[in-house]
Amino acid sequence: MKNFVFNFKSKNTKKLKNPKNILGGKGFNLAEMGKKGFPVPSGFTISTEVCDIFYRNNKKLNNNILSQIKKELKNIERDIGKKFGNLKDPLLLSVRSGARVSMPGMMDTILNLGLNDKTVEALAKQTKNKRFAKDSYRRFIQMYSSVVLKIDSYKFEDLIENYKLTKGVLLDTDLSSEDWDALISDFKDLVKNETKIDFPQDVNKQLIGAICAVFISWESKRAKTYRKINQIPSNWGTAVNVQSMVFGNMGEDCATGVVFTRNPSNGKNEIYGEYLINAQGEDVVAGTRTPQYITLKSKLQSKSKQKSLEEKMPKVFKELKKNLRLLERHYKDMQDVEFTVENKKLWILQTRSGKRTAKSAIKIAVDMVKEKLISRQEALLRIEPGSLDNLLHPSIDEKSNIKVIANGLPASPGAASGKVVFTSEEAERLNSMMQDTILVRIETSPEDINGMHAAKGILTSRGGMTSHAAVVARGMGRPCVSGSSEIEIDYKNKNFKVKDQTIKEGELISIDGTTGRVILGEVDTVKPEISGDFLKIMNWSDKYRKLKIRTNSETPLDTKTARDFGAEGIGLCRTEHMFFDEDRILSVREMILSKSKEDRDKALSKLLPFQKNDFIKIFKIMKGLPVTVRLLDPPLHEFLPKNKDEIMHVASALNLTFNDVEQRMLELHEQNPMLGHRGCRLAISFPEIYEMQCKAIFEALIECKKKKIKSILPEIMIPLVSTEAEIKIMKNLVIRVAKDVEKKTKIKLSFLVGTMIELPRAALKAKDIAKHAEFFSFGTNDLTQTTFGISRDDSGKFLNDYIENKIFDIDPFISIDEGVGNLIEIASEKGRKQNKKIKLGICGEHGGDPKSINFCSKTGLDYVSCSPYRVPVAKLAAAQAEIKK
Amino acid sequence: MKNFVFNFKSKNTKKLKNPKNILGGKGFNLAEMGKKGFPVPSGFTISTEVCDIFYRNNKKLNNNILSQIKKELKNIERDIGKKFGNLKDPLLLSVRSGARVSMPGMMDTILNLGLNDKTVEALAKQTKNKRFAKDSYRRFIQMYSSVVLKIDSYKFEDLIENYKLTKGVLLDTDLSSEDWDALISDFKDLVKNETKIDFPQDVNKQLIGAICAVFISWESKRAKTYRKINQIPSNWGTAVNVQSMVFGNMGEDCATGVVFTRNPSNGKNEIYGEYLINAQGEDVVAGTRTPQYITLKSKLQSKSKQKSLEEKMPKVFKELKKNLRLLERHYKDMQDVEFTVENKKLWILQTRSGKRTAKSAIKIAVDMVKEKLISRQEALLRIEPGSLDNLLHPSIDEKSNIKVIANGLPASPGAASGKVVFTSEEAERLNSMMQDTILVRIETSPEDINGMHAAKGILTSRGGMTSHAAVVARGMGRPCVSGSSEIEIDYKNKNFKVKDQTIKEGELISIDGTTGRVILGEVDTVKPEISGDFLKIMNWSDKYRKLKIRTNSETPLDTKTARDFGAEGIGLCRTEHMFFDEDRILSVREMILSKSKEDRDKALSKLLPFQKNDFIKIFKIMKGLPVTVRLLDPPLHEFLPKNKDEIMHVASALNLTFNDVEQRMLELHEQNPMLGHRGCRLAISFPEIYEMQCKAIFEALIECKKKKIKSILPEIMIPLVSTEAEIKIMKNLVIRVAKDVEKKTKIKLSFLVGTMIELPRAALKAKDIAKHAEFFSFGTNDLTQTTFGISRDDSGKFLNDYIENKIFDIDPFISIDEGVGNLIEIASEKGRKQNKKIKLGICGEHGGDPKSINFCSKTGLDYVSCSPYRVPVAKLAAAQAEIKK
Repeated sequence: MKNFVFNFKSKNTKKLKNPKNILGGKGFNLAEMGKKGFPVPSGFTISTEVCDIFYRNNKKLNNNILSQIKKELKNIERDIGKKFGNLKDPLLLSVRSGARVSMPGMMDTILNLGLNDKTVEALAKQTKNKRFAKDSYRRFIQMYSSVVLKIDSYKFEDLIENYKLTKGVLLDTDLSSEDWDALISDFKDLVKNETKIDFPQDVNKQLIGAICAVFISWESKRAKTYRKINQIPSNWGTAVNVQSMVFGNMGEDCATGVVFTRNPSNGKNEIYGEYLINAQGEDVVAGTRTPQYITLKSKLQSKSKQKSLEEKMPKVFKELKKNLRLLERHYKDMQDVEFTVENKKLWILQTRSGKRTAKSAIKIAVDMVKEKLISRQEALLRIEPGSLDNLLHPSIDEKSNIKVIANGLPASPGAASGKVVFTSEEAERLNSMMQDTILVRIETSPEDINGMHAAKGILTSRGGMTSHAAVVARGMGRPCVSGSSEIEIDYKNKNFKVKDQTIKEGELISIDGTTGRVILGEVDTVKPEISGDFLKIMNWSDKYRKLKIRTNSETPLDTKTARDFGAEGIGLCRTEHMFFDEDRILSVREMILSKSKEDRDKALSKLLPFQKNDFIKIFKIMKGLPVTVRLLDPPLHEFLPKNKDEIMHVASALNLTFNDVEQRMLELHEQNPMLGHRGCRLAISFPEIYEMQCKAIFEALIECKKKKIKSILPEIMIPLVSTEAEIKIMKNLVIRVAKDVEKKTKIKLSFLVGTMIELPRAALKAKDIAKHAEFFSFGTNDLTQTTFGISRDDSGKFLNDYIENKIFDIDPFISIDEGVGNLIEIASEKGRKQNKKIKLGICGEHGGDPKSINFCSKTGLDYVSCSPYRVPVAKLAAAQAEIKK
Repeated sequence: MKNFVFNFKSKNTKKLKNPKNILGGKGFNLAEMGKKGFPVPSGFTISTEVCDIFYRNNKKLNNNILSQIKKELKNIERDIGKKFGNLKDPLLLSVRSGARVSMPGMMDTILNLGLNDKTVEALAKQTKNKRFAKDSYRRFIQMYSSVVLKIDSYKFEDLIENYKLTKGVLLDTDLSSEDWDALISDFKDLVKNETKIDFPQDVNKQLIGAICAVFISWESKRAKTYRKINQIPSNWGTAVNVQSMVFGNMGEDCATGVVFTRNPSNGKNEIYGEYLINAQGEDVVAGTRTPQYITLKSKLQSKSKQKSLEEKMPKVFKELKKNLRLLERHYKDMQDVEFTVENKKLWILQTRSGKRTAKSAIKIAVDMVKEKLISRQEALLRIEPGSLDNLLHPSIDEKSNIKVIANGLPASPGAASGKVVFTSEEAERLNSMMQDTILVRIETSPEDINGMHAAKGILTSRGGMTSHAAVVARGMGRPCVSGSSEIEIDYKNKNFKVKDQTIKEGELISIDGTTGRVILGEVDTVKPEISGDFLKIMNWSDKYRKLKIRTNSETPLDTKTARDFGAEGIGLCRTEHMFFDEDRILSVREMILSKSKEDRDKALSKLLPFQKNDFIKIFKIMKGLPVTVRLLDPPLHEFLPKNKDEIMHVASALNLTFNDVEQRMLELHEQNPMLGHRGCRLAISFPEIYEMQCKAIFEALIECKKKKIKSILPEIMIPLVSTEAEIKIMKNLVIRVAKDVEKKTKIKLSFLVGTMIELPRAALKAKDIAKHAEFFSFGTNDLTQTTFGISRDDSGKFLNDYIENKIFDIDPFISIDEGVGNLIEIASEKGRKQNKKIKLGICGEHGGDPKSINFCSKTGLDYVSCSPYRVPVAKLAAAQAEIKK
């Protein structure tokens, strides 16, 4: 029969394939400690597999599991020498959750289980501490009622408060054992009233109830939310740990505390933690009493008057310190340890890898290498690549008091405060007056680029993590909260509503793009500092990774940023982003609205010098490196005039009537622009557009050559190819323009021509396309859109429903989906088969996502390209992928 | 060395793998006749492969091919005993095109080649007919100049007309040899003037020029257009046939003519054709002289006064008749034969399978089976499945005089006339007054369904062959011309402009949905009649085909039509089409605009009885057969109110303010509705919608059972699935509703649950999806859209550029594309692997396309589903697919 329940000391756990997945993080560590001889209270773990079985069995435990639990309960009784429900020496238990990864505070815990009207008296006798026994019992009733019976905890607290008021006392400690007796009676009445049944006296029923409640808490709203934020798959499930109780609240020689083996906020190699004398675990967390410091040093540093554990219980402290050192040596990682001192005896209740800030993660990893505790590879694996991003942006000072008024998607990390503005123009106006603004839009469009630059942060009420606002903001390193559907924007009256509040233009708000919070008023922020340890991690990453890291960039500023972070080229330069500047947009509009090739050529010739200069600037920064330039991609109507004035302007420039322009605009309207006349389809119809762009690239190259700047290798990328014929025609176009420029300048040009693979058909027909393409760059944004038939811009409406219904574990626009991955694999294989030398890369938003980078590494791509601020993330993720191989 | 040039009598052609593809249709038949001893003038064929080589060699013939031509020219000289360019007995040649399939009049021909200032004198002496020789020379100059030198032919005609005016004569025959001499001189001057070079006197240069011109004419505009319409791939190329001339214009014992072995317009087994005494081939076609009939019978029937060939040259007639019989026996098909009589000797210049009307194709096929000339299978292969569609609709009487004002896509066959209306309401209003209308819209939306029903035909200025207008019109059997971009619709002023003409509301127009013509005024139409032969063809098809044929239908009328055509079930019942009736749309809008599940449920409960009744009606007609019901698919905003009145209406029904409704409408707006919140995504968010629809289906089933109607098998189809979880959740929903209904009625229900495969991810992940789906129905419209990333609605803007640039041989929305086909193959294979019993079908527009049906048959699908009027087409195509296997 399969084992589902494991004693901490059981050797069966060694046979498990993935013990941590089966036992959960906490259970796994208890089993480790149990076998290694750490002072762990006896207990057992019910495996994570039971969680699934439990849900499939209508939220009930089946007989097989029940009997395994019973058997292991016997083992605890034997170990401890107490009996569960026994009227002389009753065994008491704690029941705790324990998922694969720690989800602190998200799931339920029950302590003191096994107490009832009779065993409480036995406990009193046994410990000779009646008050302690009664207090423990009332705590248990309160906890059990809240967790298992779903009675709001505050109702019990109210009873206590009322009781104290009546008695005229202030503190719980002022209550005697008789007082607790009276309250226990009130508690039981409350339970009866609320549930119509008596509080369970059968200890076995208590145990089963508690175990089931922990499993049920896996699907609680807060747990689901936490999983969503932290991208934890819901099918992992939680384990349940049942452990004999030890008491930190039996008197003055008892204590309980939480301690880190190193400082979790700055990474310093010093014990850091808090404890309370005569208390149970939750008292430390609850904040009703102020905990004391563990070490003398931290007590002195914080000028606390309370004695540290080091002073109060020097012997216990020494033993704790020894245990902590051993634990860290054993786990080779910083540990977060819960301990209890029962009558001067130290018990370790739990250990786990300690949560830490990105900054301390880096310091600890680097330090541990110095200490020869871990290798460089291990150090790299210790750091969550995604967390690096936060290090590079200012963040909210979490000590400050903030008022969160809404939440949205954490679209681009960092915090920013400023005056609310609703238009890009206003953002630019205030920016020129040195005033900070937050640009608030239903959604942004390419026209808003200047406003987004001018603003300190962007807030949108629509759009997902890969909406225009999100993508552009990340590229710029601007904080952005997107898709905050709680806010209702009223452009006309220049305000937005959230719940009952109305925020007007000019009012101060803050956004936290790292968490998605929208905050009223200004907030204090903490500026990032890039430490030597950070650079060390980057250097180590560079050593181990094989994937090249490029950046998506089209402005000199972004290009410079990315280069400073060590980007090894540009993987995506979106030329159309160069079209929106005020001094060019009119020419762009002329081009689009032209009725003849002649007019179009005229408008294009005005744009040529602008594009050329843009390229020169970028090429200079990227000297010697490859630069992938994507030719015009979006549908033309994105560039159309937006109001009467603009229409008039274009009409007069083109010698057309207002009506003519309006009519032409109408003709350009598309039902589904994403699937419309865009990408190379535009160039099939109007080859002169790409001709101008190629000319600009080649002339910029020549200019750089003349100035003796080390030449970049331009990789000219044709977007939205789905057939062999398209890339063939486009390649001929590029070569034709190159020959023209070569002929005129008598300088030979080197360049590659390739294509984005962003349509399923392109992936399926990669073999034919690779006959003409020298590189493939997977445009995973569009590829995800077409593979799923989901528009990023519109997915906000149902994405939440999809995540709640577990249809998506993770938004496929954030991490590459399996089906999309299949197409990438198909295309890579077919492409390489046709053309061994073909370069393969990815330039979608996924290029900065660690999971996706891992996929790219496995699939054997040559590079990933991501927004500038994600370059360090990508480097580390690429190194991790290689190390994991 | 590879053979590119083949003498008609050469046995080398027998070694060719696909002689018809290599030699072209004409060349293949000449080779057949040559070897079988028919009286064919000596000659050779330059293969179609040379066409490609020619274009790749910068439109030049390479030396290898030139030398092969030279060699075969020698063979003709030997055979005929004349020499090319010889000054005593010159060999004259004809140079003609010959593609794989006949493209009558689309490419160029040159006759009398080999004449120059000197050989013309030799010809005169030789034939003792100076006038004939000079006439031949001027014809040659005229033809060669037009075809090779690109001088407009009318300039030569003008010279002749002027000359005749000056001379005061009326007919060409009034001109003497001297007159022609003078004109030849004028012609040569014209050539010199236009081209700055002399008319070529070197006969070899003439020959090469002519051959090249024929190859060049393969890419002429008219040839490209013809290929586009007839879906002929451009890479097939044309062959060139070079043949010694025979002359039908050497005197009164000469003649030329065209004859069919059977009547091509009604299929009767009688010789049918025309001839002219003393004429060359093009005279018959040109219409300058009225040709005479071949047989006495047809002369009498048409009351012609001119003698028939049968009377005028009885011996030749007898020989011709014998040859025709032999040709038909040899080719086992009705032949279209060109012949010439030179000095009483009959020459067969060309034979090919005769073009015929759909009606005659059927009669000829059936007759030939009766005559034991061909088998039933062969008979079925003789009929173009697509042509059947035309037989079922009224068509324009081609004898009538029509004024075509614009062209569009032939979106739904048949002809119709009526008053121009621009709104569905007006179409309905006039319909109720018994007036015929043509609904003219920029594009149609589901709201226009009633108007489309009320109108006699639909004309749109936007949208392709699978636009909403086209799809719905075909379903209804209404003629439709779509995407007629030449017309500019002005809704405000209620008119449309085409070129300089303005057509106002109420004016009469006609449309021909079979050809795409828009015609001013009313036209005479010919009503269809379904003959016994047609039914015979259908019966034979039923015998041979294995694919089942279902129909796409959601109205009782369409269902009845499809059933009458022999549809074996419904493959696609689009339930949302039932939502637009006036008495339901308000409830639909209430449902969509509800802010709570309660309000939504209320609105849905109003819709339930309507849907239920619709299903009952359809189930009754389809009794005993499977009916695939697709649950709600389109995005909700398709149903939104369109004007203020409608908004008010909904607002009051929902107790909401006007602003509330407007706000909600704004929220429903989508950037790319095709990729938005639609299909099963709606049901993930609002399961109550599908619950209502399932309830309606099941209750309708029960109702039918109670009325003892033979039960249909409902196949409940979930649209837009891309993940396993979606189909799993949806299947559970369907089963839950079924159990509810079963419980209430105590009647057991049988049904299947399956999914559309219309997204690339669904195809890639078919194995997982097939765990839960009992059938797959390939929604090839959407699958094509997402695989290519092309929106049907917007593709009109560049589809022409794509076909002109040879990127698409055929619009992928008409015939299943290779890449899309790959996905269907992948999904079929994976689906079957997971679930052997899974039913596979196709319900996109491709279900009625013969090429696509052939693909479905090869891929092993179980059925195709198409619009009612395409059912006969699909049956025949399915039979052909099976026979071809």
